[in-house]
Amino acid sequence: MKAFLDEDFLLSNETAKLLFHKYANKQPIIDYHCHINPQEIAEDRTFENITQVWLGGDHYKWRLMRSCGIDEAYITGSASDKEKFFKFAECLSTAIGNPLYHWSHLELQRYFGFHGYLTKENAEEVWDLCNKKLQDVSMSVRGMIAQSNVTHICTTDDPIDSLIWHKNIAEDSTFSCKVLPAFRPDKAMNVEKNTFSTYIQSLSDVSGIKIQDFSDLKAALTNRLEYFASMGCTVSDHALEYVIYVPSTDEEIDEILKKGLRNLPITREEELKYKTAFMIFVGREYHRLNWVMQLHYGCKRDNNQFMFDQMGADTGFDCINNYAPSAQLADFLNALVSTNELPKTILYSLNPNDNEAIGTILGCFQDSSVKGKIQHGSAWWFNDTKTGMIAQLTSLANLGNLAGFVGMLTDSRSFLSYTRHEYFRRILCNLLGTWVENGEYPFDEKLLQKIVEDISYNNTLHYFRF
Amino acid sequence: MKAFLDEDFLLSNETAKLLFHKYANKQPIIDYHCHINPQEIAEDRTFENITQVWLGGDHYKWRLMRSCGIDEAYITGSASDKEKFFKFAECLSTAIGNPLYHWSHLELQRYFGFHGYLTKENAEEVWDLCNKKLQDVSMSVRGMIAQSNVTHICTTDDPIDSLIWHKNIAEDSTFSCKVLPAFRPDKAMNVEKNTFSTYIQSLSDVSGIKIQDFSDLKAALTNRLEYFASMGCTVSDHALEYVIYVPSTDEEIDEILKKGLRNLPITREEELKYKTAFMIFVGREYHRLNWVMQLHYGCKRDNNQFMFDQMGADTGFDCINNYAPSAQLADFLNALVSTNELPKTILYSLNPNDNEAIGTILGCFQDSSVKGKIQHGSAWWFNDTKTGMIAQLTSLANLGNLAGFVGMLTDSRSFLSYTRHEYFRRILCNLLGTWVENGEYPFDEKLLQKIVEDISYNNTLHYFRF
Amino acid sequence: MKAFLDEDFLLSNETAKLLFHKYANKQPIIDYHCHINPQEIAEDRTFENITQVWLGGDHYKWRLMRSCGIDEAYITGSASDKEKFFKFAECLSTAIGNPLYHWSHLELQRYFGFHGYLTKENAEEVWDLCNKKLQDVSMSVRGMIAQSNVTHICTTDDPIDSLIWHKNIAEDSTFSCKVLPAFRPDKAMNVEKNTFSTYIQSLSDVSGIKIQDFSDLKAALTNRLEYFASMGCTVSDHALEYVIYVPSTDEEIDEILKKGLRNLPITREEELKYKTAFMIFVGREYHRLNWVMQLHYGCKRDNNQFMFDQMGADTGFDCINNYAPSAQLADFLNALVSTNELPKTILYSLNPNDNEAIGTILGCFQDSSVKGKIQHGSAWWFNDTKTGMIAQLTSLANLGNLAGFVGMLTDSRSFLSYTRHEYFRRILCNLLGTWVENGEYPFDEKLLQKIVEDISYNNTLHYFRF
Repeated sequence: MKAFLDEDFLLSNETAKLLFHKYANKQPIIDYHCHINPQEIAEDRTFENITQVWLGGDHYKWRLMRSCGIDEAYITGSASDKEKFFKFAECLSTAIGNPLYHWSHLELQRYFGFHGYLTKENAEEVWDLCNKKLQDVSMSVRGMIAQSNVTHICTTDDPIDSLIWHKNIAEDSTFSCKVLPAFRPDKAMNVEKNTFSTYIQSLSDVSGIKIQDFSDLKAALTNRLEYFASMGCTVSDHALEYVIYVPSTDEEIDEILKKGLRNLPITREEELKYKTAFMIFVGREYHRLNWVMQLHYGCKRDNNQFMFDQMGADTGFDCINNYAPSAQLADFLNALVSTNELPKTILYSLNPNDNEAIGTILGCFQDSSVKGKIQHGSAWWFNDTKTGMIAQLTSLANLGNLAGFVGMLTDSRSFLSYTRHEYFRRILCNLLGTWVENGEYPFDEKLLQKIVEDISYNNTLHYFRF
Repeated sequence: MKAFLDEDFLLSNETAKLLFHKYANKQPIIDYHCHINPQEIAEDRTFENITQVWLGGDHYKWRLMRSCGIDEAYITGSASDKEKFFKFAECLSTAIGNPLYHWSHLELQRYFGFHGYLTKENAEEVWDLCNKKLQDVSMSVRGMIAQSNVTHICTTDDPIDSLIWHKNIAEDSTFSCKVLPAFRPDKAMNVEKNTFSTYIQSLSDVSGIKIQDFSDLKAALTNRLEYFASMGCTVSDHALEYVIYVPSTDEEIDEILKKGLRNLPITREEELKYKTAFMIFVGREYHRLNWVMQLHYGCKRDNNQFMFDQMGADTGFDCINNYAPSAQLADFLNALVSTNELPKTILYSLNPNDNEAIGTILGCFQDSSVKGKIQHGSAWWFNDTKTGMIAQLTSLANLGNLAGFVGMLTDSRSFLSYTRHEYFRRILCNLLGTWVENGEYPFDEKLLQKIVEDISYNNTLHYFRF
Repeated sequence: MKAFLDEDFLLSNETAKLLFHKYANKQPIIDYHCHINPQEIAEDRTFENITQVWLGGDHYKWRLMRSCGIDEAYITGSASDKEKFFKFAECLSTAIGNPLYHWSHLELQRYFGFHGYLTKENAEEVWDLCNKKLQDVSMSVRGMIAQSNVTHICTTDDPIDSLIWHKNIAEDSTFSCKVLPAFRPDKAMNVEKNTFSTYIQSLSDVSGIKIQDFSDLKAALTNRLEYFASMGCTVSDHALEYVIYVPSTDEEIDEILKKGLRNLPITREEELKYKTAFMIFVGREYHRLNWVMQLHYGCKRDNNQFMFDQMGADTGFDCINNYAPSAQLADFLNALVSTNELPKTILYSLNPNDNEAIGTILGCFQDSSVKGKIQHGSAWWFNDTKTGMIAQLTSLANLGNLAGFVGMLTDSRSFLSYTRHEYFRRILCNLLGTWVENGEYPFDEKLLQKIVEDISYNNTLHYFRF
């Protein structure tokens, strides 16, 4: 029996151990997709207790607590930070098989030096240990980033954002990690929402371009794209219900946009047409700028009205949407490639059933402009598990070129989540090592080193042009 | 090489063996979802030969025989019981990888004491052995239930059922297993069927409430719900094509119901609206009564008209229906939770591709009223296999709280199927044991004991309020 | 650690090794579904260099090269054969986990005697070795077929094909492998295509039947079916977007066909109705002739317009289409069985998510006319991987009768692909061996031998009536 979470955690054979310890674990981290707040980096925030840094904004952990029947007061409510920690400790102690069991203990071990396993019995001791550790300078936001060996972070930003904190960080020569923006124009795409017209007004204000038709909107977006590019941005991010392809005419798009600007009701068909036109436009812009387009889909959000009324969005009430026609995804990419304007693209679905369809779509749109131009995004969110990662890596290896993969991201709101890169690298090395040990690939250390280091770091650096 | 089906069947490591033999296997059985006939329990039916008890009503076994090219005469037709047994023995002998190979041999071993493997060569010997054993008092219906250590059974019952056999059994102090009804009102929901109006007339007769509009129907159902509750019922069961959410107005529902009562044609849209309203109503009633709502879907029934004309329903001609939008499932649960009337709910899909979508939906609707309020139902029917169980358990562990799972059911028409609980517990213990042996969870016997005993028995007892 | 690709490649236990070496590997090959050119067999084509025979028509290999960012000139373009080989060698060297890594090295080992692994460093040496080997008489088309122990090949042929090369081969007593046609009438079904009317004119010319309505078309098809049957054909092949069932009337079909003959636009609904009627007709004909109907679906073709304009179809730009309603598949088969005219049928989906739905549909339509009348087709095209094969075999074993499976096909355009049968047999034997070693099936060598030999050869011979 292997000891729990020892140095060979998830590494079941000698080749896996060699690849992880000798190569993967020594690579720095690029976290090209996350939701951390750049202000907290700029201001180098510190934390009073582990609940603040560990449970405060993590809806994965909240979901587990709700599944255990814990009252919301102890999750996001009025209970004290210490009570919340104790309730979480109790839930976690029987969460066998859940990735939180691994992530949480990796975080406790790597950042707080706790090598046991958390239970309600030792919760007091761990509470004290962690809170004491948080007094250390290495546990400020910048301290955690530095000790995690992170070289680049891409935050997620709205086109109207001033990027003042990114500027601030860039100008500070005492912090070497690059913190770059990512362009996420969802609000300009969601024409059916009742906040659309207000948002477009803000975009108009920020860009200085009066938006009355689709040409104006495009000009305003280009204005912001150029600004983001000037701030070092090389990547965008789009949350889509699914990748839509419902083509229409310029006149129709103008009509739909005008309805949206006047807060008039938009039909479902109009919504799909507008979103198609919007995505084609930004896709072409990304190609012109040599950016990466990230498309993630398969998610249905804010499903619990009772809780939404109390807590708002991004509080742990999203689920997989299993409607995502691969035909429209292929048609959308084809529309871009038909004029030779398809940008580098990463496809993520929240639904693991989409792995193979994605894997086959990649192969239809690769070209020689860059290795692995179209990428199958890392197993993320609900798929950010041992099962999910193995499935994504295996599917990509079967259907594409695993060695060209840009690898892991955290998608996290927490500064402790860099251990997910370690988690990913362990799983990757174990999968590669297993294939080698089974005689399915030769033990050629030089080739294996290159594959491991490329997926851990080099591919990402090159693909995003950092 | 492990011996075939020995005491460590499916247990590949020491932790798995310990958990199964020391804890799981000693727990009693609650079979909260099955299709056995309570009259046969009340009357303590006995069997003349193994074909009657083993092949008589088991369409899983029939399907295997048809796949082997066996003539229907030897499956459900005019051949003798002995001939049928011999044909099945021949088919089974090469059914490598099929769960029937495991289930059948577990049944032969546990109930009949046959420790070999069935072939056409030893079929005569096994036939004699089993038929002799069936003469034993332990092999009556009550004998089989008692020796299987079953404490609770929930049958499946129509709202118009008198529950006379349940009453009869409850009054018999010589039989300690509780046999409780489950409420399955599918016939009152299926407004599109040509038997609908006749059925509603019966419901009207039994409840004493004349049904002319939807209010009347609701009153009649409430009448029967109360009666079932008075008989100890705490659970319902619904067979759905998929979980529908197409909201409409009270007036529309009245119109649709009136059409149904007059046997007028119902459009597909009307059907979906009526079924939505029906399910919202019963869902709220289950919440009021603190019952469990079981929703199972993803099944298309009676696909072979040629055989249906000869044999009728439930004879082995159903398949997976792969249309089941997770968006509508989430919206349906949301409609109930928005007024705080969502009952305890178990979600089963016949399609294993739905595992992850279900897993993410659970987490949107949990609350502190009970641990694991929304459950991912056990891998059942076509998924009641080693592969299917591992997939369901792993998905639930990844996305929810496996330790709060209410575990296994038989869904069976046979009194020999309790070995499926053993099958499940072996697979469960092996999965847990494997995680522990791999260092993914600590070897803490107390915690593991609790997890195993809770999933095997305690969670179920508590969740269903037995 | 196992050596790379040694004699026990993919065989992880003793039972697996015994089953493969003693039984599976000694069976001849029936390749009942491929796309090789019968003219090349008739003329016994030879090859000048390995690029011609290995990379020339293989769009799997092209996709890998595109994923590596190789310029199209080195894939299908103007670069020399030697340059193409070198580029491929470089891509392949890091293609860990990709089935091409296994297939390519199996081909190099079995046909060219190269036992290492290809890298850019040894590419020159391998290039010379292979090209020298290609001078050998055993490396002509007939030589490769003969040394692969192939007894039967079914090509893929249009109804209007003269089958002259099949006739030529059949008359040549010096070549013992039977080369038979398969009937693929897609062009007569695709009424929506602008090439339809021209094609129907050709069909009219070849059959001598003037085609003005659906009765005429049926007569012309019957004419060609009879001709194919006279040439030894016992199998058809259909490429479907998905298995459609949209019934209509004879009058409607006549109207739609007449539109198609006049090149008038066809609505999507008309297309679905026509295709349904077409498939019902041919299905009944196959039943009358006791042929096998192969239905493959789940594919979306020619997704990259930019490349299509340069290269045309079947050049590596297809993907999985994830829309394939199992309900329509079941209804289509039911329409045939309802008049007792359902032929032997093999169902293949390109989407591995369809495995279980297919597995449950099989069981609804089996009968005693032949063992395994409705088959779950082998994991093919994008699923022709270790992962894909294990998934298909396991699903079939769980839900049907694996022992009755007709097994592997190459679906290939290359004469080196027979090693895929070896790949399949290794994976099959390893799966069976693993079940036996785990105590899930007894070690009964006689039963296991029969299962292995049946799936490798005997079932196919019997099912196709060769």
